Amino acid sequence: MTNTQILLAQRPTGLPDASTWNIVETEVPELQDGQLLIRSIYISLDPAMRGWLRDVRSYLPPVQIGEVMRAGAVGQVVASKHPDFAEGDYVNGWTGVQQYAISDGSMLYKVQKGLAPMPTYLSTLGMPGFTAFFGLLRVGKPVEGDTVLVSGAAGAVGSVVGQIAKLKGCRVVGIAGGPEKCKYIKETLGFDEAIDYKNENIVEAIKRTCPKGINVYFDNVGGEILEAALGRLAFGARVAICGAISQYNSTEIKGPANYLSLLVNRASMEGFVVIDYTKEYGTAAREMGTWMAEGKLKTKEFIVDGIENFPTALLRLFNGDKLGKLILKVGEEEL
Amino acid sequence: MTNTQILLAQRPTGLPDASTWNIVETEVPELQDGQLLIRSIYISLDPAMRGWLRDVRSYLPPVQIGEVMRAGAVGQVVASKHPDFAEGDYVNGWTGVQQYAISDGSMLYKVQKGLAPMPTYLSTLGMPGFTAFFGLLRVGKPVEGDTVLVSGAAGAVGSVVGQIAKLKGCRVVGIAGGPEKCKYIKETLGFDEAIDYKNENIVEAIKRTCPKGINVYFDNVGGEILEAALGRLAFGARVAICGAISQYNSTEIKGPANYLSLLVNRASMEGFVVIDYTKEYGTAAREMGTWMAEGKLKTKEFIVDGIENFPTALLRLFNGDKLGKLILKVGEEEL
Repeated sequence: MTNTQILLAQRPTGLPDASTWNIVETEVPELQDGQLLIRSIYISLDPAMRGWLRDVRSYLPPVQIGEVMRAGAVGQVVASKHPDFAEGDYVNGWTGVQQYAISDGSMLYKVQKGLAPMPTYLSTLGMPGFTAFFGLLRVGKPVEGDTVLVSGAAGAVGSVVGQIAKLKGCRVVGIAGGPEKCKYIKETLGFDEAIDYKNENIVEAIKRTCPKGINVYFDNVGGEILEAALGRLAFGARVAICGAISQYNSTEIKGPANYLSLLVNRASMEGFVVIDYTKEYGTAAREMGTWMAEGKLKTKEFIVDGIENFPTALLRLFNGDKLGKLILKVGEEEL
Repeated sequence: MTNTQILLAQRPTGLPDASTWNIVETEVPELQDGQLLIRSIYISLDPAMRGWLRDVRSYLPPVQIGEVMRAGAVGQVVASKHPDFAEGDYVNGWTGVQQYAISDGSMLYKVQKGLAPMPTYLSTLGMPGFTAFFGLLRVGKPVEGDTVLVSGAAGAVGSVVGQIAKLKGCRVVGIAGGPEKCKYIKETLGFDEAIDYKNENIVEAIKRTCPKGINVYFDNVGGEILEAALGRLAFGARVAICGAISQYNSTEIKGPANYLSLLVNRASMEGFVVIDYTKEYGTAAREMGTWMAEGKLKTKEFIVDGIENFPTALLRLFNGDKLGKLILKVGEEEL
């Protein structure tokens, strides 16, 4: 049984390209006791991946040269010598960018096929959704009537942040790139305002859409947009640092020169990582699943087919050429 | 009765100099009902003054061209048509850089002469002391055993931050400029470690003195030192943003390029301004007064004589040529 795998060939400077990756075919080894074999179906492509390629101390160790690229995925168990998983089970876990993965069951959990479309387990009912849920509610701490600004607003995390903030009674302003995404977050997702950062002056647009200042800023992008948001904080504002996609491919990261706005406005800026909330994923999934069933929370996935397309598909995260959660399909849901 | 006043002549770019100020002599006007006349004795020179010269929205309005420079001071009431203040009372308030000030009693409070040396009411028992007290305890939230790092550690605020952190059972590392200040904070104030940023590599020195990372960083300086501290945060660290004296005279402020350390370490960075705690100054003064009486909290003032020396004395804040709280003496304690 051959397994197509995407290995890290060398660390990129700037955007990853073909030379970053090695696409190899290997044989799937024999299962040991306590292991199971997973056939990947959908692989999650995330901005955080760029960070894992850097050889620096972070919340997860960097992917090493020659290793399978780290990724979350949903798949199906095709063989098991593990007491908790049986052949045919659908599972979600860190199985990497490959067609088959051997797991010892750690950080792996079963998903119920049919309850929601399977790609949803990588988007709104998965890591990005949980990131939005815990980042907004625990770090952003929105209160009814607050103005909540979110960047990357049409993306997997930002779109959920904005919708949850609406459900909590906030005024929601989203920042996205291009008229299609702006139309989507306003008309389909119900955001109050949309800012097209590719076609508007961001400072002016934030001033116009947040006349009373920003109470919660949920930052997915960093750079100039973070700086513009800091310049418009309300008294006691909370800035939740989720990511900085505009900076991930830069060799020199731009810090917010106006961070003293935190002092002037008695505001706080706090970073978080979703894996700290692992024990509460179930709670978040139930709550968000209910909202989805009631039609109050919408989800969108952008699916690219074929494992060999991983290197080019990944770039859509950084050039913005996708709408919703970016997913790589590498196998059929049912064989 | 003539009054020497320091007025803002023009806004400085970079360091203030002689051209920034107008030294004028005016006549003290007649008192109206509800007013009192204060003879200034000690005037507080503070890093925040540089910020008040900038024509930008901040926590206080900028000083206007032609206005008396804003300053806190202690003085004595020499005439009163105000029911709450009598001739001879000693008071602390925003009386500006001038020999005589007319007040309507707002934001003015009496101080008891003799309880502590009068300059102390502008340092440890005044605004800088309260800044240290509330900033450390409410924003930094130190816990016994924490490593607390403070910059500007020999200054009016930093020296109190470090001493209170020691009283709360923390390991305290101070950053100061030059061997004299480092010796002072270690030997006189009892800090565990001192870093001489003028003679040491700051990144290496923080690594050496904070082997387990920084739990609380109290920042008075910004710039490279803030960046170095962010690079060494412990999990869940709190960064209290009190000021950024290294940046106040810059035309372009340097933001912390490694602010994503907040994400990696699930840390927060929060700004504060002491005037929000006005109602609790009494509590802080009583607690710190007790510590001082018990010899657990030491205070140091650096006093420059003569109102005409204001322009040059102010520069000592930025070149570091002083030890302890910088104060301008403009009158005798008793006439």
